[in-house]
Amino acid sequence: MTPLYVIGIGPGDHAHLTMEAEAAIAAVTDVVGYGLYMDLLGDAMTGKRRHQRELGEETDRARMALDLAASGKPTALISSGDIGIFAMATLVFELLDHANQGLENGRGWDRVDIQVMPGISAMQLASARLGAILGHDFCAISLSDLLTDWEVIDQRLNAAAKGDFVTAFYNPVSKRRDWQLNHARTVYLEHRPPETPVIVARNLGRDDERVEVIALAELEASRVDMLTVVVIGSSTTRHIRFGRNEWVYTPRGYAKKRVES
Amino acid sequence: MTPLYVIGIGPGDHAHLTMEAEAAIAAVTDVVGYGLYMDLLGDAMTGKRRHQRELGEETDRARMALDLAASGKPTALISSGDIGIFAMATLVFELLDHANQGLENGRGWDRVDIQVMPGISAMQLASARLGAILGHDFCAISLSDLLTDWEVIDQRLNAAAKGDFVTAFYNPVSKRRDWQLNHARTVYLEHRPPETPVIVARNLGRDDERVEVIALAELEASRVDMLTVVVIGSSTTRHIRFGRNEWVYTPRGYAKKRVES
Repeated sequence: MTPLYVIGIGPGDHAHLTMEAEAAIAAVTDVVGYGLYMDLLGDAMTGKRRHQRELGEETDRARMALDLAASGKPTALISSGDIGIFAMATLVFELLDHANQGLENGRGWDRVDIQVMPGISAMQLASARLGAILGHDFCAISLSDLLTDWEVIDQRLNAAAKGDFVTAFYNPVSKRRDWQLNHARTVYLEHRPPETPVIVARNLGRDDERVEVIALAELEASRVDMLTVVVIGSSTTRHIRFGRNEWVYTPRGYAKKRVES
Repeated sequence: MTPLYVIGIGPGDHAHLTMEAEAAIAAVTDVVGYGLYMDLLGDAMTGKRRHQRELGEETDRARMALDLAASGKPTALISSGDIGIFAMATLVFELLDHANQGLENGRGWDRVDIQVMPGISAMQLASARLGAILGHDFCAISLSDLLTDWEVIDQRLNAAAKGDFVTAFYNPVSKRRDWQLNHARTVYLEHRPPETPVIVARNLGRDDERVEVIALAELEASRVDMLTVVVIGSSTTRHIRFGRNEWVYTPRGYAKKRVES
Protein backbone atom coordinates (compact mmCIF):
# COMPACT_ATOMS: atom_id res chain seq x y z
CA MET A 1 0.00 0.00 0.00
CA THR A 2 1.27 3.47 -0.92
CA PRO A 3 -0.09 6.54 0.84
CA LEU A 4 -2.16 9.23 -0.80
CA TYR A 5 -2.58 12.11 1.62
CA VAL A 6 -5.50 14.35 0.71
CA ILE A 7 -4.59 17.57 2.49
CA GLY A 8 -6.24 20.89 3.18
CA ILE A 9 -3.45 23.41 3.77
CA GLY A 10 -5.74 26.10 5.20
CA PRO A 11 -6.28 29.58 3.79
CA GLY A 12 -3.31 31.59 2.58
CA ASP A 13 0.18 30.64 3.60
CA HIS A 14 1.33 27.73 5.74
CA ALA A 15 0.43 29.42 9.06
CA HIS A 16 -2.70 27.29 9.18
CA LEU A 17 -1.09 24.02 8.17
CA THR A 18 -1.58 21.33 10.82
CA MET A 19 1.24 19.29 12.33
CA GLU A 20 -0.01 16.07 10.69
CA ALA A 21 -0.30 17.79 7.30
CA GLU A 22 3.23 19.17 7.59
CA ALA A 23 4.56 15.70 8.44
CA ALA A 24 2.62 14.12 5.57
CA ILE A 25 3.97 16.60 3.03
CA ALA A 26 7.50 15.94 4.33
CA ALA A 27 6.96 12.19 3.77
CA VAL A 28 5.81 12.25 0.13
CA THR A 29 7.76 12.41 -3.11
CA ASP A 30 5.01 13.85 -5.29
CA VAL A 31 2.56 16.71 -4.77
CA VAL A 32 -0.47 17.36 -6.97
CA GLY A 33 -2.28 20.67 -6.82
CA TYR A 34 -2.77 24.13 -8.16
CA GLY A 35 0.60 25.87 -8.56
CA LEU A 36 -0.25 28.79 -6.30
CA TYR A 37 -1.02 26.51 -3.35
CA MET A 38 2.34 24.77 -3.75
CA ASP A 39 4.08 28.14 -3.81
CA LEU A 40 2.31 29.09 -0.57
CA LEU A 41 3.85 26.03 1.11
CA GLY A 42 7.33 27.52 0.66
CA ASP A 43 10.25 25.40 1.87
CA ALA A 44 8.01 22.41 2.58
CA MET A 45 7.95 21.83 -1.20
CA THR A 46 11.73 21.58 -1.56
CA GLY A 47 12.71 18.37 -3.37
CA LYS A 48 9.13 17.36 -4.21
CA ARG A 49 7.99 16.52 -7.73
CA ARG A 50 5.32 19.11 -8.55
CA HIS A 51 2.31 18.11 -10.61
CA GLN A 52 0.52 21.32 -11.41
CA ARG A 53 -2.80 21.54 -13.08
CA GLU A 54 -4.84 24.60 -13.74
CA LEU A 55 -8.03 25.33 -11.85
CA GLY A 56 -10.97 23.73 -13.58
CA GLU A 57 -9.14 20.47 -14.26
CA GLU A 58 -9.99 19.20 -10.83
CA THR A 59 -11.07 15.70 -11.76
CA ASP A 60 -7.82 15.27 -13.71
CA ARG A 61 -5.85 16.28 -10.62
CA ALA A 62 -7.67 13.81 -8.38
CA ARG A 63 -7.20 11.00 -10.94
CA MET A 64 -3.50 11.85 -11.35
CA ALA A 65 -3.01 11.72 -7.58
CA LEU A 66 -4.62 8.27 -7.38
CA ASP A 67 -2.54 7.05 -10.35
CA LEU A 68 0.73 8.37 -8.88
CA ALA A 69 0.10 6.60 -5.58
CA ALA A 70 -1.01 3.46 -7.44
CA SER A 71 2.36 3.47 -9.21
CA GLY A 72 4.13 3.37 -5.85
CA LYS A 73 4.90 7.05 -5.31
CA PRO A 74 3.87 8.44 -1.91
CA THR A 75 1.71 11.38 -2.98
CA ALA A 76 -0.07 14.41 -1.53
CA LEU A 77 -3.08 16.00 -3.18
CA ILE A 78 -3.42 19.49 -1.76
CA SER A 79 -5.89 22.32 -1.85
CA SER A 80 -6.49 25.55 0.01
CA GLY A 81 -8.78 25.65 3.04
CA ASP A 82 -10.26 22.32 4.12
CA ILE A 83 -9.96 19.90 1.21
CA GLY A 84 -13.08 18.17 2.55
CA ILE A 85 -15.29 21.30 2.35
CA PHE A 86 -16.35 22.40 -1.15
CA ALA A 87 -13.02 21.13 -2.43
CA MET A 88 -11.14 18.22 -3.96
CA ALA A 89 -11.48 15.38 -1.46
CA THR A 90 -14.95 14.45 -2.57
CA LEU A 91 -13.70 14.02 -6.16
CA VAL A 92 -11.25 11.32 -5.05
CA PHE A 93 -14.09 9.25 -3.61
CA GLU A 94 -16.33 9.94 -6.58
CA LEU A 95 -13.57 8.47 -8.77
CA LEU A 96 -13.42 5.35 -6.57
CA ASP A 97 -17.21 5.10 -6.83
CA HIS A 98 -16.97 5.38 -10.61
CA ALA A 99 -14.22 2.77 -10.73
CA ASN A 100 -16.55 0.39 -8.87
CA GLN A 101 -19.10 1.03 -11.60
CA GLY A 102 -16.60 0.45 -14.41
CA LEU A 103 -16.65 4.13 -15.41
CA GLU A 104 -12.98 4.63 -14.51
CA ASN A 105 -10.00 2.44 -15.30
CA GLY A 106 -8.84 2.65 -11.68
CA ARG A 107 -5.84 0.38 -12.22
CA GLY A 108 -4.04 -0.18 -8.93
CA TRP A 109 -6.23 2.17 -6.93
CA ASP A 110 -6.93 -0.64 -4.46
CA ARG A 111 -3.23 -0.47 -3.52
CA VAL A 112 -3.57 3.17 -2.45
CA ASP A 113 -3.87 3.99 1.25
CA ILE A 114 -5.97 7.15 1.24
CA GLN A 115 -5.88 9.43 4.25
CA VAL A 116 -7.76 12.73 4.32
CA MET A 117 -6.35 15.53 6.50
CA PRO A 118 -8.68 18.40 7.27
CA GLY A 119 -7.58 22.02 7.15
CA ILE A 120 -8.88 25.36 8.37
CA SER A 121 -11.69 26.43 6.05
CA ALA A 122 -12.11 30.04 4.91
CA MET A 123 -15.21 30.67 7.03
CA GLN A 124 -13.30 29.66 10.16
CA LEU A 125 -10.53 32.18 9.57
CA ALA A 126 -13.04 34.87 8.57
CA SER A 127 -14.85 34.26 11.84
CA ALA A 128 -11.62 34.26 13.88
CA ARG A 129 -10.33 37.50 12.38
CA LEU A 130 -13.29 39.40 13.80
CA GLY A 131 -14.17 37.28 16.82
CA ALA A 132 -16.62 34.39 16.72
CA ILE A 133 -19.51 34.77 14.28
CA LEU A 134 -19.60 30.94 14.01
CA GLY A 135 -20.14 30.60 17.77
CA HIS A 136 -23.59 29.08 17.37
CA ASP A 137 -25.57 27.06 14.79
CA PHE A 138 -24.45 27.76 11.23
CA CYS A 139 -24.65 26.60 7.61
CA ALA A 140 -22.22 26.65 4.71
CA ILE A 141 -23.73 27.02 1.24
CA SER A 142 -22.01 27.20 -2.15
CA LEU A 143 -23.68 29.71 -4.46
CA SER A 144 -22.18 28.08 -7.57
CA ASP A 145 -24.89 26.67 -9.82
CA LEU A 146 -22.36 25.05 -12.14
CA LEU A 147 -23.06 21.56 -10.80
CA THR A 148 -26.08 22.17 -8.55
CA ASP A 149 -29.52 23.20 -9.82
CA TRP A 150 -30.44 26.71 -8.76
CA GLU A 151 -33.74 25.41 -7.36
CA VAL A 152 -31.80 23.31 -4.81
CA ILE A 153 -29.60 26.25 -3.83
CA ASP A 154 -32.59 28.55 -3.54
CA GLN A 155 -34.40 26.03 -1.35
CA ARG A 156 -31.38 25.86 0.93
CA LEU A 157 -31.09 29.66 1.12
CA ASN A 158 -34.71 29.89 2.18
CA ALA A 159 -34.33 27.09 4.73
CA ALA A 160 -31.18 28.59 6.27
CA ALA A 161 -32.58 32.12 6.34
CA LYS A 162 -35.85 30.98 7.90
CA GLY A 163 -34.02 28.68 10.34
CA ASP A 164 -31.99 31.67 11.61
CA PHE A 165 -28.65 30.02 10.86
CA VAL A 166 -25.45 32.03 10.65
CA THR A 167 -24.57 31.34 7.01
CA ALA A 168 -21.27 31.22 5.14
CA PHE A 169 -21.40 31.55 1.37
CA TYR A 170 -18.65 29.87 -0.62
CA ASN A 171 -18.20 30.73 -4.30
CA PRO A 172 -20.38 33.81 -3.78
CA VAL A 173 -19.75 35.04 -7.33
CA SER A 174 -17.71 33.97 -10.34
CA LYS A 175 -16.47 35.72 -13.46
CA ARG A 176 -19.63 34.67 -15.23
CA ARG A 177 -22.29 35.19 -12.55
CA ASP A 178 -23.06 37.56 -9.73
CA TRP A 179 -26.84 37.70 -9.35
CA GLN A 180 -27.01 34.76 -6.89
CA LEU A 181 -25.48 36.74 -4.05
CA ASN A 182 -27.91 39.62 -4.52
CA HIS A 183 -30.76 37.13 -4.59
CA ALA A 184 -29.46 35.57 -1.37
CA ARG A 185 -29.40 39.01 0.28
CA THR A 186 -33.05 39.51 -0.68
CA VAL A 187 -34.00 36.14 0.81
CA TYR A 188 -32.18 36.86 4.08
CA LEU A 189 -33.70 40.35 4.32
CA GLU A 190 -37.11 38.68 4.42
CA HIS A 191 -36.12 37.02 7.70
CA ARG A 192 -33.47 39.28 9.30
CA PRO A 193 -33.11 42.99 10.04
CA PRO A 194 -31.22 45.12 7.46
CA GLU A 195 -28.53 45.92 10.08
CA THR A 196 -27.62 42.22 10.60
CA PRO A 197 -23.78 42.04 10.59
CA VAL A 198 -22.14 40.43 7.55
CA ILE A 199 -18.44 39.57 7.30
CA VAL A 200 -16.88 40.00 3.86
CA ALA A 201 -13.41 38.45 3.85
CA ARG A 202 -11.13 38.53 0.82
CA ASN A 203 -7.76 36.84 0.21
CA LEU A 204 -7.66 35.40 3.73
CA GLY A 205 -4.19 34.62 5.01
CA ARG A 206 -2.46 36.44 2.15
CA ASP A 207 -0.63 39.75 2.09
CA ASP A 208 -3.56 41.65 0.65
CA GLU A 209 -6.15 40.15 3.02
CA ARG A 210 -9.13 42.42 3.64
CA VAL A 211 -11.84 41.65 6.16
CA GLU A 212 -14.75 44.01 6.83
CA VAL A 213 -18.12 44.07 8.54
CA ILE A 214 -21.06 45.50 6.67
CA ALA A 215 -24.80 45.52 7.23
CA LEU A 216 -26.92 42.93 5.42
CA ALA A 217 -28.67 45.69 3.50
CA GLU A 218 -25.28 46.80 2.12
CA LEU A 219 -24.32 43.37 0.79
CA GLU A 220 -23.86 43.71 -2.95
CA ALA A 221 -22.28 41.36 -5.47
CA SER A 222 -20.13 44.14 -6.91
CA ARG A 223 -18.20 44.31 -3.57
CA VAL A 224 -17.29 40.64 -3.75
CA ASP A 225 -15.08 38.46 -5.95
CA MET A 226 -14.18 34.77 -6.38
CA LEU A 227 -11.61 34.90 -3.57
CA THR A 228 -14.13 36.18 -1.03
CA VAL A 229 -16.09 34.34 1.63
CA VAL A 230 -19.24 36.00 2.96
CA VAL A 231 -20.71 35.17 6.39
CA ILE A 232 -24.15 36.46 7.39
CA GLY A 233 -24.98 36.69 11.09
CA SER A 234 -28.09 35.25 12.73
CA SER A 235 -30.71 37.30 14.59
CA THR A 236 -28.58 37.06 17.77
CA THR A 237 -25.20 37.96 16.21
CA ARG A 238 -23.68 41.09 17.80
CA HIS A 239 -21.35 43.67 16.24
CA ILE A 240 -19.51 45.52 19.00
CA ARG A 241 -16.66 47.95 19.46
CA PHE A 242 -14.20 47.63 22.31
CA GLY A 243 -11.29 50.02 22.60
CA ARG A 244 -9.98 50.47 19.08
CA ASN A 245 -11.28 47.15 17.79
CA GLU A 246 -14.53 45.86 16.39
CA TRP A 247 -15.78 42.33 16.89
CA VAL A 248 -18.61 40.17 15.64
CA TYR A 249 -19.82 37.23 17.70
CA THR A 250 -22.81 34.95 17.98
CA PRO A 251 -23.64 34.07 21.60
CA ARG A 252 -24.13 30.43 22.45
CA GLY A 253 -27.43 31.10 24.11
CA TYR A 254 -29.52 33.46 26.10
CA ALA A 255 -27.31 34.02 29.12
CA LYS A 256 -26.81 37.63 28.14
CA LYS A 257 -30.50 38.25 27.71
CA ARG A 258 -31.14 36.91 31.18
CA VAL A 259 -28.53 39.24 32.60
CA GLU A 260 -30.00 42.18 30.76
CA SER A 261 -33.62 41.57 31.67
CA MET B 1 -0.80 45.79 24.58
CA THR B 2 -0.39 42.20 25.79
CA PRO B 3 -1.52 39.33 23.59
CA LEU B 4 -4.39 36.98 24.43
CA TYR B 5 -4.39 34.14 21.94
CA VAL B 6 -7.74 32.36 21.78
CA ILE B 7 -6.75 29.01 20.32
CA GLY B 8 -8.54 25.93 19.04
CA ILE B 9 -6.10 23.04 19.34
CA GLY B 10 -8.13 20.66 17.19
CA PRO B 11 -9.61 17.32 18.26
CA GLY B 12 -7.50 14.95 20.31
CA ASP B 13 -3.75 15.36 20.52
CA HIS B 14 -1.57 18.03 18.93
CA ALA B 15 -1.58 16.41 15.46
CA HIS B 16 -4.18 18.96 14.39
CA LEU B 17 -2.54 21.99 15.95
CA THR B 18 -1.77 24.65 13.34
CA MET B 19 1.65 26.24 12.88
CA GLU B 20 0.41 29.64 14.10
CA ALA B 21 -1.22 28.07 17.17
CA GLU B 22 1.98 26.21 18.01
CA ALA B 23 4.00 29.43 17.71
CA ALA B 24 1.48 31.33 19.83
CA ILE B 25 1.57 28.75 22.64
CA ALA B 26 5.36 28.87 22.55
CA ALA B 27 5.21 32.66 22.98
CA VAL B 28 2.94 32.86 26.05
CA THR B 29 3.71 32.50 29.75
CA ASP B 30 0.21 31.50 30.88
CA VAL B 31 -2.31 29.01 29.54
CA VAL B 32 -5.95 28.85 30.59
CA GLY B 33 -8.05 25.82 29.79
CA TYR B 34 -9.44 22.49 30.82
CA GLY B 35 -6.64 20.33 32.25
CA LEU B 36 -7.12 17.49 29.76
CA TYR B 37 -6.56 19.79 26.79
CA MET B 38 -3.31 21.04 28.29
CA ASP B 39 -2.17 17.46 28.83
CA LEU B 40 -2.91 16.70 25.17
CA LEU B 41 -0.50 19.47 24.15
CA GLY B 42 2.40 17.52 25.69
CA ASP B 43 5.83 19.17 25.51
CA ALA B 44 4.36 22.44 24.20
CA MET B 45 3.17 23.08 27.77
CA THR B 46 6.62 22.81 29.35
CA GLY B 47 7.40 25.90 31.44
CA LYS B 48 3.93 27.43 31.11
CA ARG B 49 1.84 28.48 34.09
CA ARG B 50 -1.28 26.33 33.94
CA HIS B 51 -4.64 27.80 34.96
CA GLN B 52 -7.01 24.89 35.05
CA ARG B 53 -10.70 25.16 35.56
CA GLU B 54 -13.25 22.45 35.43
CA LEU B 55 -15.73 22.10 32.60
CA GLY B 56 -18.81 24.16 33.30
CA GLU B 57 -16.86 27.14 34.62
CA GLU B 58 -16.37 28.45 31.13
CA THR B 59 -17.17 32.09 31.74
CA ASP B 60 -14.72 32.08 34.64
CA ARG B 61 -12.02 30.76 32.35
CA ALA B 62 -12.64 33.40 29.70
CA ARG B 63 -12.64 36.17 32.33
CA MET B 64 -9.44 34.82 33.89
CA ALA B 65 -7.73 34.79 30.50
CA LEU B 66 -8.67 38.44 29.87
CA ASP B 67 -7.53 39.43 33.36
CA LEU B 68 -4.18 37.63 33.02
CA ALA B 69 -3.44 39.38 29.73
CA ALA B 70 -4.65 42.69 31.20
CA SER B 71 -2.09 42.24 33.97
CA GLY B 72 0.68 42.03 31.37
CA LYS B 73 1.07 38.25 31.03
CA PRO B 74 1.01 36.95 27.45
CA THR B 75 -1.77 34.36 27.68
CA ALA B 76 -3.37 31.59 25.66
CA LEU B 77 -6.97 30.47 26.22
CA ILE B 78 -7.31 27.03 24.66
CA SER B 79 -10.06 24.59 23.88
CA SER B 80 -10.45 21.43 21.86
CA GLY B 81 -11.62 21.58 18.25
CA ASP B 82 -12.19 25.07 16.83
CA ILE B 83 -12.52 27.49 19.75
CA GLY B 84 -14.75 29.60 17.50
CA ILE B 85 -17.32 26.82 16.89
CA PHE B 86 -19.61 25.97 19.84
CA ALA B 87 -16.74 26.80 22.17
CA MET B 88 -15.07 29.43 24.30
CA ALA B 89 -14.16 32.24 21.87
CA THR B 90 -17.66 33.66 21.82
CA LEU B 91 -17.59 34.00 25.64
CA VAL B 92 -14.57 36.30 25.44
CA PHE B 93 -16.45 38.71 23.20
CA GLU B 94 -19.61 38.41 25.26
CA LEU B 95 -17.54 39.53 28.26
CA LEU B 96 -16.23 42.56 26.32
CA ASP B 97 -19.82 43.33 25.33
CA HIS B 98 -20.87 43.11 28.98
CA ALA B 99 -17.98 45.32 30.05
CA ASN B 100 -19.23 47.96 27.59
CA GLN B 101 -22.59 47.72 29.31
CA GLY B 102 -21.07 47.99 32.79
CA LEU B 103 -21.97 44.41 33.63
CA GLU B 104 -18.31 43.37 33.96
CA ASN B 105 -15.47 45.15 35.73
CA GLY B 106 -13.25 44.72 32.69
CA ARG B 107 -10.29 46.53 34.22
CA GLY B 108 -7.45 46.77 31.72
CA TRP B 109 -9.18 44.70 29.04
CA ASP B 110 -8.64 47.53 26.57
CA ARG B 111 -4.91 46.81 26.87
CA VAL B 112 -5.38 43.22 25.66
CA ASP B 113 -4.58 42.37 22.06
CA ILE B 114 -6.99 39.53 21.30
CA GLN B 115 -6.24 37.19 18.42
CA VAL B 116 -8.45 34.18 17.67
CA MET B 117 -6.79 31.18 16.01
CA PRO B 118 -9.15 28.65 14.47
CA GLY B 119 -8.66 24.90 14.84
CA ILE B 120 -9.95 21.76 13.20
CA SER B 121 -13.49 21.15 14.46
CA ALA B 122 -14.75 17.66 15.30
CA MET B 123 -17.05 17.44 12.27
CA GLN B 124 -14.10 18.10 9.96
CA LEU B 125 -12.06 15.22 11.35
CA ALA B 126 -15.10 12.94 11.43
CA SER B 127 -15.66 13.72 7.76
CA ALA B 128 -11.97 13.21 6.88
CA ARG B 129 -11.70 9.85 8.64
CA LEU B 130 -14.29 8.36 6.30
CA GLY B 131 -13.82 10.51 3.21
CA ALA B 132 -15.76 13.71 2.57
CA ILE B 133 -19.30 13.80 3.92
CA LEU B 134 -18.94 17.62 4.24
CA GLY B 135 -18.16 17.92 0.52
CA HIS B 136 -21.31 19.94 -0.18
CA ASP B 137 -23.72 22.28 1.66
CA PHE B 138 -23.93 21.51 5.37
CA CYS B 139 -25.11 22.76 8.77
CA ALA B 140 -23.81 22.44 12.29
CA ILE B 141 -26.39 22.37 15.09
CA SER B 142 -25.90 22.04 18.83
CA LEU B 143 -28.56 19.83 20.42
CA SER B 144 -27.96 21.29 23.88
CA ASP B 145 -31.02 23.13 25.17
CA LEU B 146 -29.17 24.41 28.22
CA LEU B 147 -28.89 27.94 26.80
CA THR B 148 -31.09 27.72 23.70
CA ASP B 149 -34.85 27.23 23.74
CA TRP B 150 -35.86 23.87 22.37
CA GLU B 151 -38.31 25.58 19.98
CA VAL B 152 -35.38 27.33 18.27
CA ILE B 153 -33.42 24.08 17.98
CA ASP B 154 -36.44 22.22 16.67
CA GLN B 155 -37.08 24.92 14.07
CA ARG B 156 -33.47 24.61 12.90
CA LEU B 157 -33.67 20.81 12.74
CA ASN B 158 -36.75 21.05 10.56
CA ALA B 159 -35.19 23.73 8.33
CA ALA B 160 -31.96 21.76 7.86
CA ALA B 161 -33.74 18.46 7.26
CA LYS B 162 -36.12 19.99 4.73
CA GLY B 163 -33.29 21.98 3.08
CA ASP B 164 -31.40 18.70 2.47
CA PHE B 165 -28.29 19.88 4.31
CA VAL B 166 -25.65 17.45 5.49
CA THR B 167 -25.91 18.08 9.24
CA ALA B 168 -23.41 17.78 12.08
CA PHE B 169 -24.80 17.55 15.60
CA TYR B 170 -22.64 18.89 18.41
CA ASN B 171 -23.53 18.07 22.03
CA PRO B 172 -25.83 15.31 20.75
CA VAL B 173 -26.57 14.07 24.29
CA SER B 174 -25.48 14.89 27.82
CA LYS B 175 -25.59 13.06 31.12
CA ARG B 176 -28.98 14.57 31.80
CA ARG B 177 -30.67 14.39 28.39
CA ASP B 178 -30.81 12.09 25.42
CA TRP B 179 -34.22 12.48 23.81
CA GLN B 180 -33.18 15.37 21.53
CA LEU B 181 -31.10 13.12 19.28
CA ASN B 182 -33.93 10.62 18.86
CA HIS B 183 -36.27 13.49 18.05
CA ALA B 184 -33.79 14.78 15.48
CA ARG B 185 -33.69 11.33 13.85
CA THR B 186 -37.48 11.36 13.56
CA VAL B 187 -37.42 14.80 11.94
CA TYR B 188 -34.76 13.76 9.41
CA LEU B 189 -36.58 10.52 8.60
CA GLU B 190 -39.53 12.64 7.44
CA HIS B 191 -37.29 14.08 4.71
CA ARG B 192 -34.61 11.43 3.99
CA PRO B 193 -34.55 7.69 3.32
CA PRO B 194 -33.90 5.39 6.32
CA GLU B 195 -30.66 4.16 4.69
CA THR B 196 -29.13 7.67 4.60
CA PRO B 197 -25.53 7.31 5.86
CA VAL B 198 -24.74 8.73 9.30
CA ILE B 199 -21.24 9.05 10.76
CA VAL B 200 -20.95 8.49 14.50
CA ALA B 201 -17.48 9.55 15.68
CA ARG B 202 -16.37 9.22 19.29
CA ASN B 203 -13.16 10.43 20.98
CA LEU B 204 -11.72 11.77 17.74
CA GLY B 205 -7.94 12.00 17.67
CA ARG B 206 -7.51 10.03 20.87
CA ASP B 207 -6.30 6.49 21.44
CA ASP B 208 -9.78 5.06 21.80
CA GLU B 209 -11.21 6.87 18.77
CA ARG B 210 -14.12 5.03 17.18
CA VAL B 211 -15.73 6.10 13.93
CA GLU B 212 -18.55 4.18 12.31
CA VAL B 213 -21.16 4.53 9.58
CA ILE B 214 -24.73 3.58 10.36
CA ALA B 215 -28.05 4.08 8.62
CA LEU B 216 -30.24 6.99 9.70
CA ALA B 217 -32.91 4.54 10.88
CA GLU B 218 -30.34 2.99 13.26
CA LEU B 219 -29.39 6.29 14.92
CA GLU B 220 -30.22 5.99 18.59
CA ALA B 221 -29.22 8.14 21.56
CA SER B 222 -28.06 5.11 23.52
CA ARG B 223 -25.21 4.60 20.99
CA VAL B 224 -23.90 8.11 21.56
CA ASP B 225 -22.24 10.01 24.40
CA MET B 226 -21.01 13.53 25.19
CA LEU B 227 -17.71 12.97 23.37
CA THR B 228 -19.42 12.01 20.11
CA VAL B 229 -20.13 14.05 17.01
CA VAL B 230 -22.89 12.82 14.67
CA VAL B 231 -23.03 13.76 10.97
CA ILE B 232 -26.11 12.94 8.90
CA GLY B 233 -25.71 12.74 5.12
CA SER B 234 -27.89 14.58 2.59
CA SER B 235 -30.02 12.89 -0.06
CA THR B 236 -26.98 12.72 -2.37
CA THR B 237 -24.44 11.40 0.17
CA ARG B 238 -22.95 8.06 -0.89
CA HIS B 239 -21.63 5.21 1.26
CA ILE B 240 -19.27 3.05 -0.79
CA ARG B 241 -16.80 0.25 -0.36
CA PHE B 242 -13.52 0.14 -2.25
CA GLY B 243 -11.05 -2.64 -1.63
CA ARG B 244 -11.03 -3.20 2.11
CA ASN B 245 -12.19 0.31 2.98
CA GLU B 246 -15.51 2.07 3.28
CA TRP B 247 -16.02 5.72 2.49
CA VAL B 248 -18.79 8.29 2.80
CA TYR B 249 -18.83 11.32 0.53
CA THR B 250 -21.21 14.01 -0.64
CA PRO B 251 -20.67 14.90 -4.31
CA ARG B 252 -20.35 18.55 -5.20
CA GLY B 253 -23.00 18.30 -7.85
CA TYR B 254 -24.70 16.16 -10.42
CA ALA B 255 -21.75 15.14 -12.58
CA LYS B 256 -22.18 11.55 -11.50
CA LYS B 257 -25.86 11.52 -12.25
CA ARG B 258 -25.15 12.78 -15.73
CA VAL B 259 -22.60 10.04 -16.28
CA GLU B 260 -24.99 7.39 -15.03
CA SER B 261 -28.00 8.46 -17.07
